[in-house]
Amino acid sequence: MADAVIILSGGMDSTVLMAHELSRGTRLAAISFDYGSKHNGRELPMAAASCAFYGVPHRVVQLPFINELFSSSLLRSGGDVPEGAYDAESMKSTVVPFRNGILIAIAVGYAESVGAERVLLGSHSGDHHIYPDCRTEFNAAMNEAALRGTDGAVRLDFPFATMDKRDIGDLGRLLGVDFSRTWTCYKGGVTHCGVCGACDERKFALRRDEGLDPTAYLE
Amino acid sequence: MADAVIILSGGMDSTVLMAHELSRGTRLAAISFDYGSKHNGRELPMAAASCAFYGVPHRVVQLPFINELFSSSLLRSGGDVPEGAYDAESMKSTVVPFRNGILIAIAVGYAESVGAERVLLGSHSGDHHIYPDCRTEFNAAMNEAALRGTDGAVRLDFPFATMDKRDIGDLGRLLGVDFSRTWTCYKGGVTHCGVCGACDERKFALRRDEGLDPTAYLE
Repeated sequence: MADAVIILSGGMDSTVLMAHELSRGTRLAAISFDYGSKHNGRELPMAAASCAFYGVPHRVVQLPFINELFSSSLLRSGGDVPEGAYDAESMKSTVVPFRNGILIAIAVGYAESVGAERVLLGSHSGDHHIYPDCRTEFNAAMNEAALRGTDGAVRLDFPFATMDKRDIGDLGRLLGVDFSRTWTCYKGGVTHCGVCGACDERKFALRRDEGLDPTAYLE
Repeated sequence: MADAVIILSGGMDSTVLMAHELSRGTRLAAISFDYGSKHNGRELPMAAASCAFYGVPHRVVQLPFINELFSSSLLRSGGDVPEGAYDAESMKSTVVPFRNGILIAIAVGYAESVGAERVLLGSHSGDHHIYPDCRTEFNAAMNEAALRGTDGAVRLDFPFATMDKRDIGDLGRLLGVDFSRTWTCYKGGVTHCGVCGACDERKFALRRDEGLDPTAYLE
């Protein structure tokens, strides 16, 4: 039995959310997804390490069909991940069609199976407009679908909805989160590249300019 | 390129829907799911055979995690499928938590990937109240989520929403559907059992009492 299922990518947002909920006494079950992205291979070991550290049961669900059937530069089957600012038009190539719809739906079914009333997501106000399945309106519609499709048993919860990524970094620091055990870079190399849109944001969120970011970057 | 992605179980509703859409000139791509149900092993070859007959490209997506993580008597990992009338309280054990939410979400992502504007489902007015993720309110909420999460690119379509299963059987007969190439029984034996709730309904829908049902039943 768990109070909530958390969708844990192994990135900083969901890892801070896990620490935050644990600090409030929530009994968690964590679920992660290998959907064939270039950086899943870096994120998932981080998710596993954080769950081991916090003593949270963790399931990794394999979704090989996404890599086989869908097209996106974020996927191992896709082209190169663009560099530069996150908002740039070119970053649209990193959209994985309806990815969050799929991940949330699976988490809702899992939550109902283990008796959890909430599915927790680390979505925040800085999530990007280029990803339609990260927007507030999508989240609200998906929550309605979750409630209807489980007879009210499971709802979605976005505790960080009004925070931005830097707020999350600051909260994580207060909670003692070890950010070296989180992964952000879209390229999936051994070290964070430091130049993709995702790394760009991580540096800002973790206050690299103030010397507070423990991440090793290539550039 | 396809106009629509059809969720094809290999049962009579979705097979008739495929024939119906093809008769209207819709270019289809079919997607089926092996989610570990006892009858997937019987349904999926029927789905493949119908797609081969109609010349529709067909993808089967494996979802082994449902059988591993979820609980339902419909699953190979679950207990026995109950016998008797479909509406009975006992049939609730056949609910697979949020199954349709998961299957629809994957089909929406696939549709966006292949440029299809619609995801077609054979849902009908006789779909059972015990399955919350088959109800009209769920379908409406999920359609909203699909539209929001794809920036309006993909919508759900339920052409049989106001028909019942017997209407679908009658339409299929008009369209020349070979019902011996469809599977309904929940038990997944070699022959339709004839006594589970699903078989009970199939017999009525295909007018067995009028000698019009080509299905071989055990009982």
